[in-house]
Formats: sequence, C-alpha cells, structure tokens
Amino acid sequence: MKKLTLFLFIFFGPTGYSQEVPADAKEAIKAIYTEALGQQQGYQWLHHICTEIGPRPSGSEASNEAARYTMQMMLDAGADTAWLQPVEVPKWHRGDEWSKAYAGGAPISLPTTALGGSVPTPEEGVKAEVVEVGSFEELEALGEEGIKGKIVFYNTYMDHSLISTFNAYGGAVKYRWAGAMEAGKYGAVATVMRSVTLLRDDLPHTGAMSYGDSEVKVPSAAISWQAADKLSAMLEGGKVELELYLDCGVQGTATNYNMIADFKGSEKPEEIMLVGGHIDSWDLGQGAQDDGAGCAHAMQVPNLMRKTGYQNKRTVRVVLWANEEFGLDGAKEYARWAKENGVHHWVAMESDGGGDVPRGFGIGADDDRIEQVRTFKSLLSPYGLHVFAKGGGGADLSPLRGYDNFFIGYRPESQRYFDFHHSARDNIDAIHPRSLEMGAASMSALYYLLDNLD
Amino acid sequence: MKKLTLFLFIFFGPTGYSQEVPADAKEAIKAIYTEALGQQQGYQWLHHICTEIGPRPSGSEASNEAARYTMQMMLDAGADTAWLQPVEVPKWHRGDEWSKAYAGGAPISLPTTALGGSVPTPEEGVKAEVVEVGSFEELEALGEEGIKGKIVFYNTYMDHSLISTFNAYGGAVKYRWAGAMEAGKYGAVATVMRSVTLLRDDLPHTGAMSYGDSEVKVPSAAISWQAADKLSAMLEGGKVELELYLDCGVQGTATNYNMIADFKGSEKPEEIMLVGGHIDSWDLGQGAQDDGAGCAHAMQVPNLMRKTGYQNKRTVRVVLWANEEFGLDGAKEYARWAKENGVHHWVAMESDGGGDVPRGFGIGADDDRIEQVRTFKSLLSPYGLHVFAKGGGGADLSPLRGYDNFFIGYRPESQRYFDFHHSARDNIDAIHPRSLEMGAASMSALYYLLDNLD
Repeated sequence: MKKLTLFLFIFFGPTGYSQEVPADAKEAIKAIYTEALGQQQGYQWLHHICTEIGPRPSGSEASNEAARYTMQMMLDAGADTAWLQPVEVPKWHRGDEWSKAYAGGAPISLPTTALGGSVPTPEEGVKAEVVEVGSFEELEALGEEGIKGKIVFYNTYMDHSLISTFNAYGGAVKYRWAGAMEAGKYGAVATVMRSVTLLRDDLPHTGAMSYGDSEVKVPSAAISWQAADKLSAMLEGGKVELELYLDCGVQGTATNYNMIADFKGSEKPEEIMLVGGHIDSWDLGQGAQDDGAGCAHAMQVPNLMRKTGYQNKRTVRVVLWANEEFGLDGAKEYARWAKENGVHHWVAMESDGGGDVPRGFGIGADDDRIEQVRTFKSLLSPYGLHVFAKGGGGADLSPLRGYDNFFIGYRPESQRYFDFHHSARDNIDAIHPRSLEMGAASMSALYYLLDNLD
Repeated sequence: MKKLTLFLFIFFGPTGYSQEVPADAKEAIKAIYTEALGQQQGYQWLHHICTEIGPRPSGSEASNEAARYTMQMMLDAGADTAWLQPVEVPKWHRGDEWSKAYAGGAPISLPTTALGGSVPTPEEGVKAEVVEVGSFEELEALGEEGIKGKIVFYNTYMDHSLISTFNAYGGAVKYRWAGAMEAGKYGAVATVMRSVTLLRDDLPHTGAMSYGDSEVKVPSAAISWQAADKLSAMLEGGKVELELYLDCGVQGTATNYNMIADFKGSEKPEEIMLVGGHIDSWDLGQGAQDDGAGCAHAMQVPNLMRKTGYQNKRTVRVVLWANEEFGLDGAKEYARWAKENGVHHWVAMESDGGGDVPRGFGIGADDDRIEQVRTFKSLLSPYGLHVFAKGGGGADLSPLRGYDNFFIGYRPESQRYFDFHHSARDNIDAIHPRSLEMGAASMSALYYLLDNLD
C-alpha cells in the first residue's frame, strides 16, 4: 500500500513532463548499490590509475596512458565503442622548487610549490624583502611605494565558517589566480601565498594562475599553511627576506586525449546521457580525489547498470576529459566536436568534487526539469542523497552550455576535499572505497531513473 | 518576508507543545558553527586525550587521567561544578597474542587479537585443526562430531549492502559476542573470527564477547580481514591447523570515574540537559573515534554556547561515562545515582558513533516530541543535518530508560566508522578536525534550540 502511494505520487508529480518510474525501481536501485559496495570496481580502476600510472599533468604521457587504460576497461565492461579524441594542450614542466626565509638567524626552509603557469625564477633565484597583505585592497593601499622590489606574501584564507568548502574555495582562489598579475602592477619581484586549503598542514597546494594580458610576469608560488603561519610570525618580529627558487613553466604543447566510450541505448540511441570526469591531474599527487574519483564514478555508471542486468534505453556516454586543470582544453574540444556532429546530449553529468560520501546533486535545467528530478528524492534519500539544488554541472560541462541544457553536478560531502586538493597528499589513500562507490552508485541510480523518463 | 514565514511555521507547528524559536536563532546557530570551525577546541581536547593519554581500557589508570583532564577543561570552560564519580569496573589485561596457520609448508602468521573477556590460552597455546563456518546454523549442522577438539573459524561478514554500517554491525556482532559460547557447546577448543569491519585491511579488531552462563570457556580471538581471506583460501586446499596464543583476561576490579560537569541554567537549573560520551576505549588504539570523539562533542556543547555568548536557561550537564565497552558500568552507576537523587533529565543526548560529518539525530521520545524536534529541520539543514529519525539515544543512556523519556542520539556519517572501530587504527589521525567540529556544533545548535522551548 505504501509502495502504491509512492508510485502514484511520482506518476502524478507536479511537473510538466510525463514520467515513468519502473515498478521495480526500488529493487533496481538497491541492486546498483549492492553491486558497487561489493565488487568495488570503481575503486579498483582508480587504484590502478593512481598507483600504476600516477600524476597526469597537462601534456604528460601519463595522461595518455590513463586514457588508453580506461578505454580498455570500458571495452571490457561492454562499451559498444570507445575511442581517444586528440587534444592539443600546453606541456607543463616542474623541476626543483624551494624557498628560505631570513630574519637574522639561520634561514628557515618553507615548503613551497610553483603555481601552475608561473614563470621560473632566474637561475640564481630571487631574494627580496617580504611584504605581507591580507587582500587586494591592502595591496592597493601599499601601492608601488610599498611593493616595488619586494616579494608579496598573500596571507589569505579560505573562509572556515562556510559549510560548503567549495564556496570557501571560490572566495579564496582569486589570490592564486590573479595574485601575481596584481602584485606585478606595483613592481613586486615575486609572490608567495598561503596554500588554498582548510587543513592546517605543512604541504603546499598548487593550482592554476594567470598573468592575464600583462607583459609583467613575476614568479608565483604557494607555501604550506604552517609555513605561512611561520612567515607571518617572523614578520611580526621585523624585516624578513625571502629567497625563492622555481624551475617551472610551459614548454610548448603536446597531444593528450579525451576518452569517449558509448554504451548504446536500446530505444533512443541518438539521445546521449553523458557522464564524465577529467583524466588529468596536477603533478604533486596521484590525482585521486581530483579527479580520478570522478573518472571512476563516471566509468561505473554504465558498468553498474549492465552488471545489475539493466539495458539502458538511451546511450550512456562516458567522457574523461584531458587537461581540465590547465585550460579546459579537453572539454572545449569535446564540445566543438559534439556541435560539429550534431550530438544531442539529453543530459550531461559531471563529477569533479572528489570521492567522499554522497550528499546529492546540483541540477542545471529549467524549473520543471528540476522539479522532475526532485520527485526521485524518496527513492534516493535512503542512500544519503538529500541535496537536489538548483544549478549544476561543472567546469568540463561549461563549453556545452547554451547548446544543450540539462546538466547535473554530483555533489559529495565537501569537508575533506581541500585537504588533498592539488597537493602531494592527493593519493589513493585519500580515497575511502565505500564512500567512492556510494557516489558511483548514486550517479548510476539517478541515470537509471532519468533513462526511464519519456 | 521569507524569514517571517519560517518563523510562523515553526511557531504554529503541528505539535502539542508550545514552542519558541528565538528571533535571532539563525544567527546564533551560525555563530556556533563559526566558533567550532575556527577555534577547533573539541579537536584540541581530543588531540590531548589521544596523544598525551592514549588507550583507556576498563580498569586503566589512563581512563582516570582522562577523567581528571576533562574535568579541568570543563572547569576552565566555565563549568559551575565538575566532579568525578567512582565506578567499580573489571580490570582488563592484554599481553602477547598471536596465531599461526599450518597447511604443510611454512607456518603463516595471522594478525590476531583476543576478544574482550576471552580467557587466555594455556601457556603453550592451543593447536588444533580449523573448521570454518559461515553462521551459527552451519555450526549447529556440523554438531559435536564436526567441532569437537577443533578451532572454529567464524568466517562471517558485516553485510556490505547495508547503507548504515551500524545496521551492518548489528547483524554481524553476534558472532563476536556469542561465538565462543556457541562453539564451546560442541567441544571446540578455541574460536577465531573474521574481524567485524568493512575495510579489507590487515588489522584485527577486538570488542566484547561473553560466555553467558556457560561453564565452558574457550579462548576467542579475531583475525584481520586479510588473514581471514588467507585462512579460508588455505582451507579450500585441505586440512589446516591453527596455533593460537592469547595472554589476556580479567584481573580483578579497579576504580574508574565518570566525569560530570554542570553548566548551570539561569531559569530552570533543576531541568538537566545531559550530553555525553564514554571516556573509556578499547586498548588497541587511542580511542579517537570510539569514543574520544563523543567526549569532545559533549564537552563542546556548553563551551560553544558560552563562547558565542549564550546563557543556557536549563542546566547543561556533560557526562563522560567510564567503561562503556566492557560492561556499561559507568552508565549504570550514573543512572543509579540520578534516580537516588531525583535528578530530572529534561533531555539526554549521546554521541557514540564517531567523529565524521553530521547526518542528523535519532530521537527517542513520544511522537509529539519528535515532531517538535523536526520543526528545527529548516534551521539545521544548511549544516548537512537531514536525518531526524525516530528512536534515539545509545548504550550509555539505556539505564535511564523508563525513568526519563526524551533521548537523542547524534548520528554522524557511518561509512568510515568500522574501519577504525576497536582496532590499532583508531588514533587521532582517524579524526578529521572540521568534521568533528561540525558534529559538536550540530549537537550544540540542537541543544540551543531545545533550551528555548517551554
């Protein structure tokens, strides 16, 4: 009786779309989770990508090795077609990098990493007085008089009071992206910044930066949270000099690949249900959370459907994009190709928030469509899915916006994500197998339900 | 306007209780989370308990050291009274312990730990043929003929398909609790079991077992997940002998202490809002998740109220119970004392599910009361709290049942908990500072809201 009520509610739900939820939806979804949590196939794939292949920065051969490996895994899982789409990307190089602070006594070494896109220092490094700022406003107030010839230290923070750490990241990352560009205007010789993280750790976190259109390009690095605390405390005691050495930079271009695998639909094969993550990573860690987890999630979506005996009506397409981190090249190339070939994405879902336990989805669509997805809540809430927010998709789906218009972003728990993000800590042991698989099953269950809508 | 609507809904909510939500509730709750996530005082306390004091098994001096430390911390945080309540407990002893499997070739060492309450083996150990069972039904079917003189190996599992790992634990723990008692009936000379965990690791997990009223007491141990896989594979190849050595047992009794700290209410000091965790732990790890986290949570509840400038109307009482793990002695003694002294617990909340991110609460109360708590949902859901389930409290509150009748169990995310539970992995690095503090803030926010009800 209870079941019937549920079914009727969904069938006559408050949307403009006709809807069908299979009579055995509850059992089918349970089977998807059971398969994911038992076999842990997504974790096994991710384990290989992390430990056998490793970091996959833009332009690396490792990125291509991961593309070939995942293509084979998708064929083994029953993909009808799987292929590699070439993408021209900048080739990022990182060599030795370090910094030392001087305040009278012995120099203090600070864990340091070049930001992605930074120019190198001269071979002899740069050594200059440090000036600390807490914001662009403080930088501006100091002006050329206070900045020229110095190293600017952005002692800036993610806002710990924000519950979504992605929101906190959004507020802090501007100092990473534009810190060197802004400081260069006032004659700074280099910049360092407190790593964009919430963990009070001693590892530096990298990430992309930009000089914009500026001709002035000063070397730019991140130092660890604890190093930033140390440097700030030294500056309270008086003048501090910093010596910075960075061997890094873009060394031409290289070819990386998007991996594209199709699991053909039995009824509407021309309607594509895209699910993806990005196969590249930064170079300091194995890219387990960012975004190996998203790749494992995406690969599991059709695999879990097929393993539980479900034949998708629409075509489920797995796309693992090349070089998200350093220019979004893979996503742009995929979108260009899709438009050129008149591909219709009935829906597109991205996972690029790590492998922690599920919280829900962000849905980028018209209001009726959002309400339609929300009618699945009662079927999905037993699995911890309670967020069905407006606005979804992620960076790699952005080039498809305006072309197709139904996007979903998977939203895992965010508390731990920036502990690992872009650092040497982002390795396979950052991944909790059950939590990862819960995410894969959640995405697969949602796609199963969507596939059954008219 | 939106705010007003919310307020009216709560005020005229569908319950029989008169209700008041302070006009600034939203801001007060935000302040509680901000304080928790900034200062991370609960994590700092827990860090001390784990790293400076360490494992706190029943009868240990470390349990008393932790009681004294937390009492001082509560006084420092502004407690009006704080005291130690003596509790007589069994003194648990663990010495050397190991096992080796023989199947023709060189012996294979298996990571092994005595279950809590097991008798020791003879000094020369026990060595016997292994018989594997997957359930009590299989044990019974083998009977005395198949069991006598052998070591029973319970190759039993937590059900990986259950989303709540606490439910999965509930289904598997009977083999730990009663495995030796049942096997003893058929003449087994010892038992070993697959550790009760979901992580496919190589550490054994201990926990309480019982011989019931049986005169027959056979030594009982857990082996790691990977050792159980190994042993099972060896048994597929033919006969296997196991040699087991356990130096363990109860060595009389000792005095431990409940820590009780009162933060007096300004309007209804005689109405107690109890919040607690248990201060003891098993002996293999530091007891960070089980239940140092719960102690830190409980201690933070009044501390966060006071730090954000809130004066509680009712008395907030922190109770850290002695010896939950090995007999619930602290909880029984507290309940005895409370009844003897006519203490009225208006509400009692327990945290004994670890320090992961919040999911919600279990509420053990009459239906009207549950509905009343559910009206707080809109104020608490921005912090990830979405479970407001019927049935709450935990083991340490159970002796109060029937005496007072409004219990709450804090429910964190459960996916990782049994990775650490009762093992050498349950150390401070099992705790994620922000996640722990989110829990403390969630409990404090709920108590703030409850304190404002008539």
